[in-house]
This record gives sequence, structure tokens and C-alpha cells, in this order.
Amino acid sequence: MEPFKYHVYVCTQEKPDGAPCCAARGSGKVLDALRAQIGKAGLDGVVQVTTCGSIGLCERGPNMVVYPEGVWYAGVNVEDVPEIVREHFGRGGVVARLANTDPAALKAEISENRRKAIEAMRARTATQKKT
Amino acid sequence: MEPFKYHVYVCTQEKPDGAPCCAARGSGKVLDALRAQIGKAGLDGVVQVTTCGSIGLCERGPNMVVYPEGVWYAGVNVEDVPEIVREHFGRGGVVARLANTDPAALKAEISENRRKAIEAMRARTATQKKT
Repeated sequence: MEPFKYHVYVCTQEKPDGAPCCAARGSGKVLDALRAQIGKAGLDGVVQVTTCGSIGLCERGPNMVVYPEGVWYAGVNVEDVPEIVREHFGRGGVVARLANTDPAALKAEISENRRKAIEAMRARTATQKKT
Repeated sequence: MEPFKYHVYVCTQEKPDGAPCCAARGSGKVLDALRAQIGKAGLDGVVQVTTCGSIGLCERGPNMVVYPEGVWYAGVNVEDVPEIVREHFGRGGVVARLANTDPAALKAEISENRRKAIEAMRARTATQKKT
């Protein structure tokens, strides 16, 4: 069940120490462009836009997930936004060149990034204890 | 497509000036409890947990949405978390007493809260210009 026809979650995660993250890779501008394009296309009542924390594809951001289909878009730039709005939200298609299609590979990537994030957090905690 | 069997987005939105929001209503503790319970149940590889910004049911938080089903849970307290983990993520059921079931009512509520948020933002901007 979705109150709107589409619900898109846009990752705006920030990370410390220069770690790769959607915010550093320009998700703020992508979010602004997305909202503007949705408004321009008259799709405000069709698409709900929500920001989200890390979904685990940090090196390949900006990332977004569109429901109800569960389409995971990676590496979305401002220039890609009009196509996503037109093709996906307007016509119900998928922008294939930006969509991840292998759930097993995605799960492995997310799990590995989760492991690295925990490791980095532990390293930071250890450093803080020393100083 | 979802890399994990379930993906839950937990709203942790903060809002200024005492406006109702999931953060003020305890979403941080709910998130911690959710992560702990998922780990305890051995479901780390089954459920992906992601934080999210406002989904528009601010007076009724903490809110979370579970995919692929698109179940919108509202008013989730720490005490509700074990049941959600056991019944939904463990057994594939829905905790009916916390789930919203009327998408049209939900859309109206979200649209009204969106209108109020824009109004409040404009009022803040106007006040800032005066001072």
C-alpha cells in the first residue's frame, strides 16, 4: 500500500572523514532537482519524495529507491533527473541505465559496506579513547 | 526488487519550534530497539534498516514503512518493536493494530501536513526577515 502512486527515497547520508557518501557526491542538488522537476511536471500528487539515510551503495551515489517497484537507482546526477521524472513517474517505465538489476550483488555490496562502516566506527572510537 | 527480504524505513525527522515529529516522539529509541531486536532474532541478513526523513504523519509518530509490502506503521513504541520483529520479519505477518490501511486517508493527511509545513516555513522566513 502506498498513499501516492510512487514513493521515492533519496539518500542524503553524510559521513565523516571524507568517507564516500551520497551527500558528498551531490545528493542535495539531485534532491532539489527532483522536487523541482516533479512540480514542473505536475506530479506533486503522484510522487512522494522522502530523504533517507545510507542504503549501503555509498561509492556509487547519489542513490534513490522507487516504490512500489523497488527500483534501486545509483549514480544519479542532476542531469538524469528529468529523464527519471518523465520516464518513470510520468510513463511508468524504468531508466534502465541507472537501475541496479542484481539483488544478490547488491546485498553483497551493502553487507561489505556495512562491515567497513562498523570497522571505521570502531577505529574512530579507539582513536578517541587514545586522545 | 529488494536486496534483503524486508526493507524498513524508520522516520527520524527532527523539526524546529516544538513542531510534532518522529524524533521528538521517540524514534531514536525505537530505531535502537529495532536494530537490537533484529540482531537478537538473527535477522540481520533478512532485514535492511534505513532511517528516513518525514513521511508526513508527524502527529502520529514514530512511523515506519516496511517493503516490499508497503506497510505503514504509525505510533510505534519501543514496547511494540519485539512484536513487529517477531510477527512481520520473522513470520511474514502484519501487526494490524499499528498498520494504516486506508491509502486515501493517508494521502489526505500527508498533503495537509505538507501544506502546514510549507506555511510554517514561510512564517519562519518572514520572521527572520523582520529581525
